[in-house]
Amino acid sequence: MNATKKRGKQSFVLPSHPVITTWASVAGKKESEGPLKNLFDVTSKDTYFGQKTWEQAEKQMQQIALETLAKKAGMKKEDFSLVYSGDLLNQCIGSSFSLNNCGIPHLGLYGACSTMAESLLLASMTVDGGYSDQVVAMTSSHFASSERQYRFPLGYGGQRTPTAQWTVTGSGAALVCSEGHGPRVESCTIGTVTELGVKDANNMGAAMAPAAFSTIRAHFEDMHTCPEDFDLIVTGDLGQLGREMLMELARRDGINLGGKVTDCGTLVFDLPKQDVHSGGSGCGCSAITLCSYLLGNLNSGKLKRILFCGTGALLSPVSTQQGLPIPGVCHAVSITGGI
Amino acid sequence: MNATKKRGKQSFVLPSHPVITTWASVAGKKESEGPLKNLFDVTSKDTYFGQKTWEQAEKQMQQIALETLAKKAGMKKEDFSLVYSGDLLNQCIGSSFSLNNCGIPHLGLYGACSTMAESLLLASMTVDGGYSDQVVAMTSSHFASSERQYRFPLGYGGQRTPTAQWTVTGSGAALVCSEGHGPRVESCTIGTVTELGVKDANNMGAAMAPAAFSTIRAHFEDMHTCPEDFDLIVTGDLGQLGREMLMELARRDGINLGGKVTDCGTLVFDLPKQDVHSGGSGCGCSAITLCSYLLGNLNSGKLKRILFCGTGALLSPVSTQQGLPIPGVCHAVSITGGI
Repeated sequence: MNATKKRGKQSFVLPSHPVITTWASVAGKKESEGPLKNLFDVTSKDTYFGQKTWEQAEKQMQQIALETLAKKAGMKKEDFSLVYSGDLLNQCIGSSFSLNNCGIPHLGLYGACSTMAESLLLASMTVDGGYSDQVVAMTSSHFASSERQYRFPLGYGGQRTPTAQWTVTGSGAALVCSEGHGPRVESCTIGTVTELGVKDANNMGAAMAPAAFSTIRAHFEDMHTCPEDFDLIVTGDLGQLGREMLMELARRDGINLGGKVTDCGTLVFDLPKQDVHSGGSGCGCSAITLCSYLLGNLNSGKLKRILFCGTGALLSPVSTQQGLPIPGVCHAVSITGGI
Repeated sequence: MNATKKRGKQSFVLPSHPVITTWASVAGKKESEGPLKNLFDVTSKDTYFGQKTWEQAEKQMQQIALETLAKKAGMKKEDFSLVYSGDLLNQCIGSSFSLNNCGIPHLGLYGACSTMAESLLLASMTVDGGYSDQVVAMTSSHFASSERQYRFPLGYGGQRTPTAQWTVTGSGAALVCSEGHGPRVESCTIGTVTELGVKDANNMGAAMAPAAFSTIRAHFEDMHTCPEDFDLIVTGDLGQLGREMLMELARRDGINLGGKVTDCGTLVFDLPKQDVHSGGSGCGCSAITLCSYLLGNLNSGKLKRILFCGTGALLSPVSTQQGLPIPGVCHAVSITGGI
């Protein structure tokens, strides 16, 4: 019997502190015009990434992210032991087609925009437990495939509400290993499905803020930490509006998050200049922000410790059409700088 | 640093042999008229399970499965530490809505019809590693929600091809613990995404057979086992036709699977009497077969060791309409009788 690594109701520690040795990001046109433009590994002005459809473009982005990750790690991609990945497309075809016939073991996830945190959490658990090594956490999203699937065809020219977020076109991948140099994962908190009645599919930030708050509070309780223990608490992706709601929920509960909270949806785009309304969204949003700016600054020592909180809205067009509210989920990963 | 539990390229062992202490199954009308009719915990003749839509019926089945599991385990469902679950519905709304606001940590999966094996594999890893305990693996599918989403509205009365399978209406849940009595999980093999060019969305068995063979062969190689070491090698769900293709692929590779191979899609329905053509399918198919017949017979000692091989077809209606082939995946879990 192993000693328990469980902490409190929702959290666990990773005694070996698995290392994120390498990370890679692929970004679309709009993303590569934003504040993080110089930090991405690969950028493209072609929305189709050389493919015939937007869905295949998303597959292509994941393939490029995986190949770039392998190159940066000095490996062949076939040498990765396991890939945890998922995306927003129906039946996650971005993820499954990107790994088609390449011989890498794959476990598929669905956590909506929380997928980068979910995959990193599971990759870290797998490596810490000794079940595998050199495990990849990966996800992607694409503005055009998401708009078509969740809302309207782009050609329809639908008006966007002020609360709307802009789905990031991009893919991020992180390599988790038992040895090496880089930022380290020390503990994780698994979210519960949380919903406070928000039904507006154009206001995802509001739908996800209660889940984000619930998980952040659980992390503090389970791990006996507080906001002061972190340089940043990074949600991904509540947008500007969702971030304000998170702050308000925390205030009402007597928790002062201070100036610690930032959001991948507001880091990845220049608000309001880039006209993305409340900010970025999509699995790719927190993925490319983590796999460029955040891991880069953790690695250089500029950031010492962050709580990376992936937030997902667990709706589908069908559930919305059937008048159901939007449940949210948030998974948190505590990452320390790599020294 | 933990000692590695990794074996070969795709497999790992679970030294503590986590116990499946409890299991529960919920089945629809057609399933409760089949060969396993006396083994299910809950059956219903109401396709809607008291709900307004088929999607909500699927949510309801998962809720009933979870409540039944808690009752059989002598627990409250709020006491479960973690639920790994997923389903076939777009954005897995069966799984997320079933756990809405009930306070149980949740990690969402997408593995198509391999989800029961994927969730059992991850639950076993989580418990063996000491990251959590009393972890649930769960999934569901519904004939009517699947037909509407993947093929045609039921009212259209589309003709079914002889290769077609019948999506099972049902949900299964298994509780994995570090201690207790019951069947035990000893090792797992994670599948790779495998595709040999099958494009016919009405012939899922053919699409998944190569993945099933690839994973079964990997399990034998990685774990130094052979078909003789198992009472049964149970795929879920290739159907009759897919099973024949699996046997043929094995024969060509010089592996004699003998009479060991059976399939959840042929166990759950009475073929050809129940007019399901090639057999059952859907996440619920292997879930209710495992969480009734298979775990029951392992527990009673009638079966000593099985290789449970969840098979998933990773297509979406969009990928099919865009003319793409159907990738498959298969995850295998080796389970011994509980003595």
